Amino acid sequence: MTNSKPALHTSLSPSLFHLYDINNSIVVIVDVLRATSTIATALYNGAKCVIPVDSVAKCIELGKKIEAITAGERDGKIAEGLEYGNSPFEYPKEFITGKTLVLTTTNGTRLLHMALDRGAGHIITGSFPNLSSVCNYIIAQKQPVVIGCAAWKDRVNMEDLLFAGAVINKVKAHFSINCDSSQIAETLYVKAKKDLFEFMKEKNASHYHRLMGFGVEGDIRYCLTPDCANVLPFYEDGKLVIHNW
Amino acid sequence: MTNSKPALHTSLSPSLFHLYDINNSIVVIVDVLRATSTIATALYNGAKCVIPVDSVAKCIELGKKIEAITAGERDGKIAEGLEYGNSPFEYPKEFITGKTLVLTTTNGTRLLHMALDRGAGHIITGSFPNLSSVCNYIIAQKQPVVIGCAAWKDRVNMEDLLFAGAVINKVKAHFSINCDSSQIAETLYVKAKKDLFEFMKEKNASHYHRLMGFGVEGDIRYCLTPDCANVLPFYEDGKLVIHNW
Repeated sequence: MTNSKPALHTSLSPSLFHLYDINNSIVVIVDVLRATSTIATALYNGAKCVIPVDSVAKCIELGKKIEAITAGERDGKIAEGLEYGNSPFEYPKEFITGKTLVLTTTNGTRLLHMALDRGAGHIITGSFPNLSSVCNYIIAQKQPVVIGCAAWKDRVNMEDLLFAGAVINKVKAHFSINCDSSQIAETLYVKAKKDLFEFMKEKNASHYHRLMGFGVEGDIRYCLTPDCANVLPFYEDGKLVIHNW
Repeated sequence: MTNSKPALHTSLSPSLFHLYDINNSIVVIVDVLRATSTIATALYNGAKCVIPVDSVAKCIELGKKIEAITAGERDGKIAEGLEYGNSPFEYPKEFITGKTLVLTTTNGTRLLHMALDRGAGHIITGSFPNLSSVCNYIIAQKQPVVIGCAAWKDRVNMEDLLFAGAVINKVKAHFSINCDSSQIAETLYVKAKKDLFEFMKEKNASHYHRLMGFGVEGDIRYCLTPDCANVLPFYEDGKLVIHNW
């Protein structure tokens, strides 16, 4: 029997990302709390596109130039000079429809630019709000996949690992998985899936702790909710747009 | 109530090691399959000391100079030019008592030298064969701890994570643990502990797969057995020696 299934790997941190072949793979950028949850939500609610940039200065400059909404955070809070933050609740339909969002975040947009710098040509973003879209898409493409967790300042985090595990749990029959990080992620997800929020709380996950300190429990609960903004953000020509395939 | 417990962190790969403050911590070097299992075993069986070196050339040179046993592996096999390999079964009492072992391995001794280069002053080695010694020691010292997993060529691996989890499971009441990697490790260990070998097999762990291909199932089973060589290897003056404290 020939095993012709494509490979799937998980990179648990930007510091590990160089170990994986991203040039011949679909790269799934994951930053559950909160960049990739917010990207899915803004697009789901009708944003024209989301332009990820890797610095606050670029965000301000581009925002002015194209008259777009500037948004982003540093260390979990709205970055100075930007109009909006990194909470999905800041982008309801009545506000975001038809608009362009220029976004910069501590970890997620940084990893996306790392992928671009390394020549990745096939990038999507994933989080629990668009879990099924990501899974359906990568199953259908029949190509190798690298799930890239944005982590927190390079330290492995719980929620991105849990999302990688959720994807693997749903797609594993379609891939060849020779990757301990992926096995670890799926095992953890199976253990946690009954109540992801409670699991994050019980394990005192660092980002749970950080965001609870900012009083945004609602954000955490939303970002852990499967398929509440179930679109596929796809990167092309410098923008993330909904990919209908 | 003052929380005066020292911090504990886990670094899942040498590529993440730079994120942790190792200068004011006890560093536990972990390479379950097989360097740190073999180090504990050689010392337990009476070796005078184990000298970890970071290249095959240095291993050969030093071995000649001090008339010591040269040992080590590259890619899981005995490295060319060395006398012995990285299997704990190569170092029984009748062979190793009173002798000096000069050892170089793909991952474990490399991480140890990385720690030395960064100025770590307090290094011990750990694996399941000396699990209790490691736990008792770090509890007693009341100092911050960084568990450094050697991984496999920088990719996170299952068995080093499981060992980190085993340590955390036993010592967590004595430490302040604000580290998702540590929480992930402990959760996985609790899930796996009933039968670590079966867990590694079921999850198709990459190193399980690699070593089974070399026909050394016995090595894997031994290296996952708690306290079968329960000594504390402690690094001082260029050597790993048993620390009786």
